[in-house]
Amino acid sequence: MDFDEYRKRGKEMVDYIADYLEHIRERRVYPAVQPGYLRELVPEHAPQEPEPWEDIMADVERVVMPGMTHWQSPHMHAYFPALNSFPSLLGDMLADAINCIGFTWASSPACTELETVVMNWLGEMLGLPDDFLHTRPDSKGGGVIQTTASEATLVSLLAGRTEAIQRAQRRCPDLEDAEVNARLVAYCSDQAHSSVEKAGLIGLVQMRFVPSDSELSLRGDRLREAVRRDRAKGLIPFYVCATLGTTGACAFDNLEELGPVCEEEELWLHVDAAYAGAAFVCPEFRGWLAGVQYAHSFAFNPSKWLMVHFDCTAMWVKDAGSLHRTFNVDPLYLQHENSGLAIDYMHWQIPLSKRFRALKLWFVIRSYGVKGLQRHIREGVRLAQQLEAMVAADPRFEVAAKRHLGLVVLRLRGDNALTERLLKRLNARGRVHCVPAALNGRYVIRFTVTSARTTPDDIARDWAEIRATADTVLQPDRPRAKVPLAETRARNELFGSSLLLANSPMSPKIVNGSFAAIFDNGDQELSQLRLQVKDSPAVRRRIRGMMVSGKQLSLDSSLDMAHSLAGRGGMRPHSEPSAGDHLPEEDDSDEVNDMPKLCAKCGHIIKE
Amino acid sequence: MDFDEYRKRGKEMVDYIADYLEHIRERRVYPAVQPGYLRELVPEHAPQEPEPWEDIMADVERVVMPGMTHWQSPHMHAYFPALNSFPSLLGDMLADAINCIGFTWASSPACTELETVVMNWLGEMLGLPDDFLHTRPDSKGGGVIQTTASEATLVSLLAGRTEAIQRAQRRCPDLEDAEVNARLVAYCSDQAHSSVEKAGLIGLVQMRFVPSDSELSLRGDRLREAVRRDRAKGLIPFYVCATLGTTGACAFDNLEELGPVCEEEELWLHVDAAYAGAAFVCPEFRGWLAGVQYAHSFAFNPSKWLMVHFDCTAMWVKDAGSLHRTFNVDPLYLQHENSGLAIDYMHWQIPLSKRFRALKLWFVIRSYGVKGLQRHIREGVRLAQQLEAMVAADPRFEVAAKRHLGLVVLRLRGDNALTERLLKRLNARGRVHCVPAALNGRYVIRFTVTSARTTPDDIARDWAEIRATADTVLQPDRPRAKVPLAETRARNELFGSSLLLANSPMSPKIVNGSFAAIFDNGDQELSQLRLQVKDSPAVRRRIRGMMVSGKQLSLDSSLDMAHSLAGRGGMRPHSEPSAGDHLPEEDDSDEVNDMPKLCAKCGHIIKE
Repeated sequence: MDFDEYRKRGKEMVDYIADYLEHIRERRVYPAVQPGYLRELVPEHAPQEPEPWEDIMADVERVVMPGMTHWQSPHMHAYFPALNSFPSLLGDMLADAINCIGFTWASSPACTELETVVMNWLGEMLGLPDDFLHTRPDSKGGGVIQTTASEATLVSLLAGRTEAIQRAQRRCPDLEDAEVNARLVAYCSDQAHSSVEKAGLIGLVQMRFVPSDSELSLRGDRLREAVRRDRAKGLIPFYVCATLGTTGACAFDNLEELGPVCEEEELWLHVDAAYAGAAFVCPEFRGWLAGVQYAHSFAFNPSKWLMVHFDCTAMWVKDAGSLHRTFNVDPLYLQHENSGLAIDYMHWQIPLSKRFRALKLWFVIRSYGVKGLQRHIREGVRLAQQLEAMVAADPRFEVAAKRHLGLVVLRLRGDNALTERLLKRLNARGRVHCVPAALNGRYVIRFTVTSARTTPDDIARDWAEIRATADTVLQPDRPRAKVPLAETRARNELFGSSLLLANSPMSPKIVNGSFAAIFDNGDQELSQLRLQVKDSPAVRRRIRGMMVSGKQLSLDSSLDMAHSLAGRGGMRPHSEPSAGDHLPEEDDSDEVNDMPKLCAKCGHIIKE
Repeated sequence: MDFDEYRKRGKEMVDYIADYLEHIRERRVYPAVQPGYLRELVPEHAPQEPEPWEDIMADVERVVMPGMTHWQSPHMHAYFPALNSFPSLLGDMLADAINCIGFTWASSPACTELETVVMNWLGEMLGLPDDFLHTRPDSKGGGVIQTTASEATLVSLLAGRTEAIQRAQRRCPDLEDAEVNARLVAYCSDQAHSSVEKAGLIGLVQMRFVPSDSELSLRGDRLREAVRRDRAKGLIPFYVCATLGTTGACAFDNLEELGPVCEEEELWLHVDAAYAGAAFVCPEFRGWLAGVQYAHSFAFNPSKWLMVHFDCTAMWVKDAGSLHRTFNVDPLYLQHENSGLAIDYMHWQIPLSKRFRALKLWFVIRSYGVKGLQRHIREGVRLAQQLEAMVAADPRFEVAAKRHLGLVVLRLRGDNALTERLLKRLNARGRVHCVPAALNGRYVIRFTVTSARTTPDDIARDWAEIRATADTVLQPDRPRAKVPLAETRARNELFGSSLLLANSPMSPKIVNGSFAAIFDNGDQELSQLRLQVKDSPAVRRRIRGMMVSGKQLSLDSSLDMAHSLAGRGGMRPHSEPSAGDHLPEEDDSDEVNDMPKLCAKCGHIIKE
């Protein structure tokens, strides 16, 4: 493709993109395809000769679009938003054309310096303490754009680990790294994102999922108690990941209480505000930030609600030296960097290289201005309030947890199975897309307002769709929408044994055909599937493992456990949850003493 | 910005990009800016009100372009290529507009399935064994697009760690994870990329940098010997990262010899072919692949030489279950995934989420065809041969290592200082951009052919520029080009004490003003700087640390060591390297017995 053809094709692509986004309402938000659909549509081997551009573009509608979940659709309410915007798209077009690789200042000075500047802007826009910014020559803190919030969490955990190991070695110089590491314990709430657990697995540290309170918030006293218990066992608490805006229900951990505990106990405090962080551009939502001055690191995703498209995770640290020490660079020689003049961002992140992501963030902030971004956030909240009011007005439904920001969690009153059936039919119809969550044993539908182009009419239409689908669930004699997954199951007989909500960002433990958790498989009740699976010793072990390890329980593991306990006479009601209705902890339960011993870190059975 | 404005601005951006790339030769390849330049050009705070698009675009030339290192310039010869291409840009425009987040099949079926298909295409194009592909329903292997090669290395090391821990626990069920982990040892050559060391630090395992042979290749016997020594100490060897195409000189580790050792010793063999992998689309370069059937994982960057712009790292594994086990998912329930029908890629990678990167790879493969990509690789090699011949014809220069593929390493005959001065002046002139490397103590200039638009005339022009600059170096009375870094240094007095090649992707240990390693700082000789730094006890410790730990020595650490040894009467010649002229190993050297004890993993001094 030469320059002239690029000019032509590029402009056609601009029109295609504008058309796609302008008419996205006309597409099913979730596609009606089955696993393996695409393989049938494309050649088995790469072409030897160049193909004409027309053929390639034609395949976008023939091959790609039929299998898209349209994240930019106003009817997309699953997960959290992943918005783009025109300024973001234009900024990234330019970044891709330049395609510099930023790892040191010298490799792309503008890439590094613009990142430092816009991260200062953004930190200030959120009201972060200036310890986190790179605005003073003597500042030890600063911002960096990471690829994902998962990586921000991992980087913070590794930095905390390094600090803890070095602190222990200062006290007791004979300790080896591995000896210290084996005793390290990290903490998060039972509502934390699966990436926190993943960070613990990578860092090879134990992770405690501390029970949240009745409002799904992690509180200071529970953290303090967990830390006390671990210290009594000779372990070394070192890290807390607090969440502002949990995945399940957008709950907020209590930084004001957690902060002082972390300070007293020398714990690295990381704040994961992946979704909710964007809201802090509005001063009225900053109450949840109280206590952030205790944090060592803070991250949120402009790539969620702030219309800077993926990838863009904003992370700030108070002491960049701790990142350098983690990646084995002697901070004594970093005073030049710490002046903010020539950062080598390779020492702030897992990968060596990075894209010029600051451009799209810069374009978005300037195109909207702070006030434009505030308007966007406030409108999203207003639309969520609209839905919340409609749910509350229908006696068949309930709002299952306090609404925060743009996330409404709802359910049909009564048995979990009703709501599960509602969600699966809703997704099978393809006009609204949501995913479930489990809150204290209750199956709920998460409805997130995402798009900047969602209107009150869209919300009304979505609610009508949910109600119409509920009608079919509550009138069970009507014919059911059927998703033809039989072919898939025929190809793999284990397909039917899905246990888990693997398509939710929440901690998945057992994965099989993840979409089975959100799509109606037509002819088999989930309980039957589970009963089948109970015949497998490995699954039984796994379920017991989850119980014993005291981990966060996602929807399916909760339900599995309920089934398992039911079989053993120990079932407790989960349709009527109460505050503090948590699983037995390892040391407290007679019921589980006959269970195999599990590795506290990874849940593997280490002795049979 | 509404749809109409996007259509207008998007088309303007297409023209801007075409103009930028068409006229990139007219820009300095490396900018004439000093650290902190950008901060002076932009407001201190984010704007409250939206700014007009014209102002934002105007700032691209006013603020960004003056500080760009132009990676797409035909005169960019630093690092490795990071090419884009029009089909890649168009594919990513579309991906950004769709902006789906792929973590499970259900979150974006087309994103997942297209990735599986193009990774099959690409693996086949490279001649990988079909164990690595996802073409059979019963295949346990498959491909995944990672963000960077660093992450592919880390993922493979973590997977190898999990396998090793579980293997040890099967043999001895009472072992805890941490006990096993403390004894794990990984291996790579002394030429391996810094990301391998970083992976070891994150995984908290010891890393041995095994000496390469006279052709900078890691050989089977040396690996076997290193493993034997570690087993004798009661350690557990578990992982080898072999490099095909090293950063320093594009050397190739010997897979055919390493493979059987890994098989016998139960070591996970990861092949990092980040740069060279692209060349395997041409059958004539696949000799280096011999032995790849022993590998457990293989990665290369289409985002380097294959014109798929960053980020795009192609990684294949033979057993995807090992990745799932690493991230704590029971592979028993993954038979559905392993059928290749509905992969949840979140279990194959560090981050949860991913971009729709398969689109740009698909567009590039189809637009060029296999034959077009082969032509591109062959042309790059031919241009490197052209430069190699010109270097060889000038008696003042030497080709410092055998040329492989598109990388020529060259130096002025004689003292390292001459070549160092040549490189710094070359970069200061800004018409050609290269970075240095250290090969067995010799300072060399790496010259990589990068752009698909590089012509024989460009190479001739670059060589004329190098020769003209050499004239000034070899006639020291002529006035020297001076880079005005005085202001920067005035702001930070430690700036002058740069020791290390931190702007090279090779292992940086001590970082201060990384660009000092490639830019002439005008008024101070590097040797003087080093002598100053020798006064610092911390630096002395650090240098001894590098010696004792037997790590890969990058340029500056080699030179530091030479200086350090010179001061202690132990200097050995490094301008005349010979095969096997390696550093003393930990157990062999009387010379270093009086050194402080260092942590074998991180190089920190653990006892004084």
